[in-house]
Amino acid sequence: MSTRVEARVPRGMRDILPEQMIRRQYVMDVISDVFEEFGFEPLQTPAIELYETLMGKYGPDAEKLIYQTFHEGGSEELALRYDLSVPLCRLVAMHPQLPTPFKRYHIAPVWRAERPQRGRYREFYQCDCDTVGSDSMLADAETINVIYAILTRLGFGSFGIQINHRKVLNGIGQFAGVPQGQLGGLYRSIDKLDKIGLAGVKKELADNRIPEDAIERLMELLQTEGRNRQLLDNLREPLGSFEEARQGLDELSQILDYLEALRVPEKFFTFKFAMVRGLEYYTGSIYETTVKESKITSSVTGGGRYDRLIGMFRKESLPAVGTTIGIERIIDIMEELEMFPPQVGDTVVEVLVTLFGPEQARASLALADRLRQAGIKTEMYQLESSLRSQFKYANRKSIPYVVVIGPDEAEKHQATVRDFVSGEQKTLPQSEAAAQIQEWMEED
Amino acid sequence: MSTRVEARVPRGMRDILPEQMIRRQYVMDVISDVFEEFGFEPLQTPAIELYETLMGKYGPDAEKLIYQTFHEGGSEELALRYDLSVPLCRLVAMHPQLPTPFKRYHIAPVWRAERPQRGRYREFYQCDCDTVGSDSMLADAETINVIYAILTRLGFGSFGIQINHRKVLNGIGQFAGVPQGQLGGLYRSIDKLDKIGLAGVKKELADNRIPEDAIERLMELLQTEGRNRQLLDNLREPLGSFEEARQGLDELSQILDYLEALRVPEKFFTFKFAMVRGLEYYTGSIYETTVKESKITSSVTGGGRYDRLIGMFRKESLPAVGTTIGIERIIDIMEELEMFPPQVGDTVVEVLVTLFGPEQARASLALADRLRQAGIKTEMYQLESSLRSQFKYANRKSIPYVVVIGPDEAEKHQATVRDFVSGEQKTLPQSEAAAQIQEWMEED
Repeated sequence: MSTRVEARVPRGMRDILPEQMIRRQYVMDVISDVFEEFGFEPLQTPAIELYETLMGKYGPDAEKLIYQTFHEGGSEELALRYDLSVPLCRLVAMHPQLPTPFKRYHIAPVWRAERPQRGRYREFYQCDCDTVGSDSMLADAETINVIYAILTRLGFGSFGIQINHRKVLNGIGQFAGVPQGQLGGLYRSIDKLDKIGLAGVKKELADNRIPEDAIERLMELLQTEGRNRQLLDNLREPLGSFEEARQGLDELSQILDYLEALRVPEKFFTFKFAMVRGLEYYTGSIYETTVKESKITSSVTGGGRYDRLIGMFRKESLPAVGTTIGIERIIDIMEELEMFPPQVGDTVVEVLVTLFGPEQARASLALADRLRQAGIKTEMYQLESSLRSQFKYANRKSIPYVVVIGPDEAEKHQATVRDFVSGEQKTLPQSEAAAQIQEWMEED
Repeated sequence: MSTRVEARVPRGMRDILPEQMIRRQYVMDVISDVFEEFGFEPLQTPAIELYETLMGKYGPDAEKLIYQTFHEGGSEELALRYDLSVPLCRLVAMHPQLPTPFKRYHIAPVWRAERPQRGRYREFYQCDCDTVGSDSMLADAETINVIYAILTRLGFGSFGIQINHRKVLNGIGQFAGVPQGQLGGLYRSIDKLDKIGLAGVKKELADNRIPEDAIERLMELLQTEGRNRQLLDNLREPLGSFEEARQGLDELSQILDYLEALRVPEKFFTFKFAMVRGLEYYTGSIYETTVKESKITSSVTGGGRYDRLIGMFRKESLPAVGTTIGIERIIDIMEELEMFPPQVGDTVVEVLVTLFGPEQARASLALADRLRQAGIKTEMYQLESSLRSQFKYANRKSIPYVVVIGPDEAEKHQATVRDFVSGEQKTLPQSEAAAQIQEWMEED
């Protein structure tokens, strides 16, 4: 074997240790439960895609961040997936036999070589649900409902789902007199509003030769925000003569209707016409979510409608809409706000069976087996060391119950079980240990 | 956006569609349940490691298959993980504060650019449990117990866990007079016994200048197989004068003791001294499992003890032992033998709420919301099409229950629920639909 190397991870990568992983698993379970309650089916695509599958979909800024990959003797140009939406569209195009609407969820890592920052990693998980083959606003409303259901179930009480529509945005651009070919640049500038402020955006637009009076008209409309239908109606006056904008407003209005029927409370969503979402492939409604109580102001979900993306892989496109739930930030916020329920502990282990000495190993193993048969998560201690240090180990790992079979207990086929938190301790027949621990677990 | 490209996946890669994914999820859930029952904690490492972290650990044949990766502006040499054991050792070396014994499980994909074959992919999942920091054979026995528990719980009735020990193998080599420096080559030849046969192995050994009489003595011992303690005792005679071999036999004998205490039935494991396991890093007990009823003869688990691997990342090593459960083959075999329980269906969806027409959309949405609140997995149909084609969709997807709210039902706040399998159908108040479906679900 080769010489020793330093143990390190690549820049922007990280390990997730058990304590964090248990919380992470809890969040992912809630998310997949809700996805399934809404009828989304699980699905998986490979991490490695053909390079050409990914390129030309996200926009140049994003595509710089894609990881390429290769192996000895390989001739294909390969890359790691950048998101889960493009692979989904590639898959749908490859499998024309899939029933539509096709609703799938996918929870998996993606890779982006962004500049590492606190709380931002180059490998992170996306939790996506998408509906393919439905152009009905039912699908858009349901996507927003999923976001609401997940965040509510995780315990968030104060969050805002911001909604916009690419066609309304186009209409605002047309209304202001921005030439069709410059709409992309317009979006990219507007997208920076939160970062560079109103003055910054105005300057960038001016630099891009958008006339000053157009900028003024634009800014006024873009800063419209609010949650009610009145707002949409007000926009019909300035934008009503633009076919695309009218379509967008109609669709948003229909989404409102459906959200009401689905009983998603109005206070959780709001229109925000300056919200753009960076990726090029969106074509209709778009949404993102921020959590109001948190210091973390960036969005925890992002999604929208992308009706033309599947058409980049086959002759006829299919309409599609979906969202990503960003669990990395959600976990950070839940930790910040101490939102994890008490049953999500630091360990999965419920009982530590100690090892008194080699003579007691057989009895201890047999009892560990019994506890596992009863469905109790049981760790058998595996080193010969003092009981005291075994108890310290249990305590350090926050294992709630401990079992000891010493020489006396072994002889009488007994075991001593201890509730680590209450300090209660009992010596009883080995056959009764599982029931005693289960009783304590129910009390807690 | 760019022009259309053909929808394809790279060579050796594949998508997993919902029907398969549901079965896969079931298998992974059983495996992680058992891992947790044995006190293994979840953990996650990044898919991308430093190239130097992986190299020099697996042996040259394996390391040719490693995928390298890079991104614009990056200066690190990067690679995709080849297994989960080396990343674990790297992690343990980086986190000296972890309590020991440290028991973790990890279910995740790994990448190997092997020649694609039927049933073999370049991205596949490993399900690993490992114990770090214990040199006790308790850890080895528990690892074998985990394999037994998982396969039994999945419904396998006839499988064999083959056990060997690298130190016994070394002893056999020493006994036969193979020079220390040629033991590695010896293993690689023996490992091919199932592929190239006895004559093939003998020829390879002779080509490597191992004396003919040594080969004869070797082959006799190597072909020893069986399950009982007597077998180990018989080997003490020829190998007893080799310290390393004696140690190995003692350890195997202790593993037997513990397996008995853990009540793992003897018929499920057997010694097989010609079994090598390809990877270089093993140092002690090794095991793999084959399923007897299946046409698929390759192993479904692989593991062993690797006490020196952590020492490749820090000054002092820590003992470690673990196993991989190979879910890809397990799933193939379970499909071959039709082992999936009936509740593991083709869809997660329990109810399809149909969309009679736009006027009934609100009532249908409200009912879908009610069903979801009751925890029923509910798909709301999203296209305007005939009831007949909606029923066809439900049937094709094997959704068991369907709800219809037509004009009559909407007016009377009723819904018609139908059990797709029995054909039973009822019209009842919308508020009673969830309870009716739950009643049917319990009957099924």
